[in-house]
Amino acid sequence: MENGPDIKRFFEPRSVAVIGASNVEGKIGYKLMENITSGGYKGELYPINPRGGEIFGIKAYQQITDIEGSVDMAIIAIPASFVLEEVRRCGEKGVSFLTIITSGFSEVGESELERKIVETAKSYRMRILGPNIFGIYSSKVDLNATFGPKGVKKGKVAIITQSGALGIAMIGKTATEGIGLSTIVSLGNKSDMDENDLLEYLANDNSTKVILAYIEGITNGETLLGSLKKISRIKPVVVIKSGRSKRGALAAASHTGSLAGSDEVFDSVMKQCGVFRAESLDEGFNWIKFLADTPLPKSNSCVIVTNGGGIGVLATDACEKYNIELMDEPEYLKETFHSAIPSFGSTKNPIDITGQSSAEVYKKTLIAALESNRISSVMALYCQTADFKKEPYKEMITLIHNEYMSRGKTIAFSLVGGREVEECVNELKENGLPAFKGVYEMVSCFGVLHRFSENKARREMEIAESEIDVERIENILDNALSEGRAFLLSQEAKEMLDAADIPTPKSFVARSIEEAVNGAEDMGYPIVMKIVSRDILHKSDAGGVALDLENKEEVMDAYQLIIRNAKNYDPHAKIDGIEVAEMIPQGLETIIGARRDRSFGPILMFGLGGIYVEVMKDVSFRALPMDREEVYSLLKDVRSYPLLLGVRGEESKDIEELIEVMIKVGTLIRKVKRITDIEINPLFVFGRGKGVKVVDIRIMIAMEKEVSE
Amino acid sequence: MENGPDIKRFFEPRSVAVIGASNVEGKIGYKLMENITSGGYKGELYPINPRGGEIFGIKAYQQITDIEGSVDMAIIAIPASFVLEEVRRCGEKGVSFLTIITSGFSEVGESELERKIVETAKSYRMRILGPNIFGIYSSKVDLNATFGPKGVKKGKVAIITQSGALGIAMIGKTATEGIGLSTIVSLGNKSDMDENDLLEYLANDNSTKVILAYIEGITNGETLLGSLKKISRIKPVVVIKSGRSKRGALAAASHTGSLAGSDEVFDSVMKQCGVFRAESLDEGFNWIKFLADTPLPKSNSCVIVTNGGGIGVLATDACEKYNIELMDEPEYLKETFHSAIPSFGSTKNPIDITGQSSAEVYKKTLIAALESNRISSVMALYCQTADFKKEPYKEMITLIHNEYMSRGKTIAFSLVGGREVEECVNELKENGLPAFKGVYEMVSCFGVLHRFSENKARREMEIAESEIDVERIENILDNALSEGRAFLLSQEAKEMLDAADIPTPKSFVARSIEEAVNGAEDMGYPIVMKIVSRDILHKSDAGGVALDLENKEEVMDAYQLIIRNAKNYDPHAKIDGIEVAEMIPQGLETIIGARRDRSFGPILMFGLGGIYVEVMKDVSFRALPMDREEVYSLLKDVRSYPLLLGVRGEESKDIEELIEVMIKVGTLIRKVKRITDIEINPLFVFGRGKGVKVVDIRIMIAMEKEVSE
Repeated sequence: MENGPDIKRFFEPRSVAVIGASNVEGKIGYKLMENITSGGYKGELYPINPRGGEIFGIKAYQQITDIEGSVDMAIIAIPASFVLEEVRRCGEKGVSFLTIITSGFSEVGESELERKIVETAKSYRMRILGPNIFGIYSSKVDLNATFGPKGVKKGKVAIITQSGALGIAMIGKTATEGIGLSTIVSLGNKSDMDENDLLEYLANDNSTKVILAYIEGITNGETLLGSLKKISRIKPVVVIKSGRSKRGALAAASHTGSLAGSDEVFDSVMKQCGVFRAESLDEGFNWIKFLADTPLPKSNSCVIVTNGGGIGVLATDACEKYNIELMDEPEYLKETFHSAIPSFGSTKNPIDITGQSSAEVYKKTLIAALESNRISSVMALYCQTADFKKEPYKEMITLIHNEYMSRGKTIAFSLVGGREVEECVNELKENGLPAFKGVYEMVSCFGVLHRFSENKARREMEIAESEIDVERIENILDNALSEGRAFLLSQEAKEMLDAADIPTPKSFVARSIEEAVNGAEDMGYPIVMKIVSRDILHKSDAGGVALDLENKEEVMDAYQLIIRNAKNYDPHAKIDGIEVAEMIPQGLETIIGARRDRSFGPILMFGLGGIYVEVMKDVSFRALPMDREEVYSLLKDVRSYPLLLGVRGEESKDIEELIEVMIKVGTLIRKVKRITDIEINPLFVFGRGKGVKVVDIRIMIAMEKEVSE
Repeated sequence: MENGPDIKRFFEPRSVAVIGASNVEGKIGYKLMENITSGGYKGELYPINPRGGEIFGIKAYQQITDIEGSVDMAIIAIPASFVLEEVRRCGEKGVSFLTIITSGFSEVGESELERKIVETAKSYRMRILGPNIFGIYSSKVDLNATFGPKGVKKGKVAIITQSGALGIAMIGKTATEGIGLSTIVSLGNKSDMDENDLLEYLANDNSTKVILAYIEGITNGETLLGSLKKISRIKPVVVIKSGRSKRGALAAASHTGSLAGSDEVFDSVMKQCGVFRAESLDEGFNWIKFLADTPLPKSNSCVIVTNGGGIGVLATDACEKYNIELMDEPEYLKETFHSAIPSFGSTKNPIDITGQSSAEVYKKTLIAALESNRISSVMALYCQTADFKKEPYKEMITLIHNEYMSRGKTIAFSLVGGREVEECVNELKENGLPAFKGVYEMVSCFGVLHRFSENKARREMEIAESEIDVERIENILDNALSEGRAFLLSQEAKEMLDAADIPTPKSFVARSIEEAVNGAEDMGYPIVMKIVSRDILHKSDAGGVALDLENKEEVMDAYQLIIRNAKNYDPHAKIDGIEVAEMIPQGLETIIGARRDRSFGPILMFGLGGIYVEVMKDVSFRALPMDREEVYSLLKDVRSYPLLLGVRGEESKDIEELIEVMIKVGTLIRKVKRITDIEINPLFVFGRGKGVKVVDIRIMIAMEKEVSE
């Protein structure tokens, strides 16, 4: 990428060659030429066809190398078996971007052919979009290099889609919904270019105001994370991702992993990035249209105006669901609306003019709301009454909308009723107005608009990282791998935590009474002692455990007793010594997990320990790296979070120290690439100022020396 | 109600009088006459107007009493101040039902006038619909006695609506969506008739296949519960209820109550009744249309046919969300579809013919699916491709639908694309076909259809009740009330539980060492002892508690020690004795609550105790009475339910006994009307066969002797 051509030439090519251009209707090469010429492409167009002659009245070249001028983009629409050769020729010609429409590659198992094409392109420093795509439309140069419909509506929304069929349907749908496009790009097999390449350009493209991405799977998630975090503060990004269901979920790699169904991770990460995930196509389309056309509200003071009590209540409910505050100042509302609405209406928010009021009253009330300096957004609801006439209402709504939108007011309309009302909504929509059939649809749009306001206000913060002794840790891993193990022994894991400065209970293995006593005296009481023997698995059954020892004498007695018990239990057991450890008081059980997600790379998981995780599945995820705020929000995401603040009169817990440990675990998995899984379960969290302590830990490592990210 | 007129005469009046009928356009009395006459009402129509003459070419009477024939229904549309007088005249005339359109009663504070009207009607055994409504449409007699639009589409859906304005809009919307109505009734102020009266008729009305109710608030919930449970097994009932948001929530009456936001209760109760609650109007309309027109699937074998991979995955996701199983038999699917679809397509469910396939292939694939004896339902998805033409697709879909629907197949179509595709969907819908723009909308319809199949399969079971000693309990209440208390003392509460046969720890108050020792010996060890004194609130601080006493000697020592400690703590304290109680081992903490919900009457709550309830809000609700299955489902509804089955190697808990206690608590609150709140918190549940035990209880009672339900 660093050495590739400027992405600008992809969205704004000065010249385009169509390899496989054709005069024969029904061929893709025909459709492409038709769309490019009728779309009014601003650059040079070179049809390529072995027969030469003229195509669409333009001189055709037999080979791309025959062209005299330079070619920024070659669009390839010929059978799969001929593509590689053409790619080579494009390379010779010095083309920058290849848009490979042709299908029949990795999506049907022909991965080798695809690999060769990518390799060839790379050797010429060319970038590839596709293969297996419908093409690209870019409004900047009026290029419709797709085999989709002709009439693309120009506008402010950029669409990136992984599904070709859906993408073509989307072109039609955007036009119908009155949504204008700055660009639409089909990603297909993503053999080379992916979302990240496109976002890089779109972030700074001033003709794009909103971005919609339809995603099926993510390949380069860690980079995507960074791009999305940055861009979502500048422009709203809406994502529709399919594959929520179990079929798409990752196989569970560890206990932590088994909770991290990939869709759950995706959902969390999108939230973390400030991206808005729509559940359905329709929801996504409603959002992008609204986001593209509506000014951001200047404050939180929202008012609902309605002529029907029922839909007023439905909208109020929806406002709560989508976190929209309704203005609640009875005196001010009364003052603002009492002269506009009839006596039997209500000036409480929702402002209800009732079904008996005329269009005139409705208009007066809307204007009263929009003229108020303190009301920044207005939801206008309308329920069909006997006096509804389409044209006057359409005109009134259009006038009011245009007037007040230009004055920076946030306003939308939801009209409920029969045929005529529905036609009214459709026509308003097509004219680009924020009109809706459903109340929920409208309110959910206000919801994302508010969330985007919050995104904009979010500051960029420093990545939270800690100092860790990477070299020491790598040595521990080397040692484990040299013994053929993909996991660390308890003592190794403890050593690794030490190297990362994560608090574990103090402990050592004593091989004599003297060692035990001296060590215990240094460590401080109370302590616990446990037999260390590979032959004795059930230490308690063997009488090999002593708890809560408080002084030297007790340590001496316990040492002897444990050895005696062990020998009685199994006279042949090889005894390595006795572990002497600090005794840890009961703390609040938490779990911290870290692993490498297939899509997003290193992710961190947090949950409250024990039953909360196992039974309630009460865990949360974030992708790394994170700033301190994000780590904090990871804690707050679990439903059982109040336990950390202290409930039932318990003291509040040491959240500061908990966050420190999470940062350290995050640093570990990011800096030491061979670690695949870390699960601290439980981590005891004590009262504020009293710290945290790892009670048990499991670390998995990759068997290969080098792990590709 | 028992003595009222036959509800059949309300939906099928043989004669109707319109009081306030008018020739003056713009008046409601004009609109009513216009709708009734143009709608082709099959009975006798009598316009009433003081001026007499003719109205709409029909002889008008000056007063209703002037009419010779009998009048089943009088529709009143005159100013509020004249209504009472007319109601009286209707009574004299012997009218059965009054449909009072007029507004200006309790909804604007004129409750007294409304009360008088209801009283007068009752004295003549007349029933009232309204006031403050838009009227009633009933297809049985072609009566459109509303001031809504003229063209009501006749069909199989009955609508009951509490909002007038929304109701009128619904008439329009149903026509546009191709939904036919058997009836639509506006309930308004519900001064007399409510949902229950209407459901009674609709349950057995053979022209009604589906019922939709728009509800804002419920008044007679206990009866409604019974009606809904019964009817939802026969016909699908869809409910849209506004007031989800906090504004509508009940004030928290107790700890249990504070968790029971009324909307949560409503939601639970609707599920309990087998009613389908739609979140939005659009969702509700999609459902009723589908439910009215689509045959129930004969089995669970569902197949998705698509020409777009993307929407196929979206639909698969939606299937998981709505609990629809997709047929997963690779061999059978391959065999069924391989000859229909192209080689690059997929015979895995979703069956994907890809965007390159023609309409012919699409049709062949659909037919292959529908001809299969083993596939009972088919979701047909279509993504616009370049070759889409509206008319041939419309024709193909219509042909396939009509052919296979008549053969009992469940099929629906979702088409995604631009203007032409959207028009295609609209036209199909208007012709009554199950066509959708969105994939989710379609799948959610399959979801309710499946749930209705389950409803039908549900058996009606006996109500679960227990024997309780009501008289003894009433005495306890009388005693508390005589002391001016709205709550029971701990000993009273315990006595009440005894009377209901709910297990509490054995205990008694000893007033001497001998009493303590003898009682303890009878009861068995271990026991606990506690000082009983109104002057000592903090028993532990006073040294007034002794735990885990194991024999006679320890009891004697403890008795003396407690008395001594108490005297030291407060020399003036009046000591009533020492409570000697069975010591209860730790069990799984649960909460059982019962209270009277404002809407539904007695309801039962269950939660896992302690933090699960307080922090996680993990509780569930059901309205009483219940059968044993419902009580069991109440347990299973909480997320922490697996704790009862035993997790982390713990033994499973005594669910049988827990259910018994829940049934007993339910019986208590139902049979003893003066109890307003019961909260058992915690109830310890022990291992299977080891029972349960109440640890703490709180009971609140109503101060009035008679509590109206």
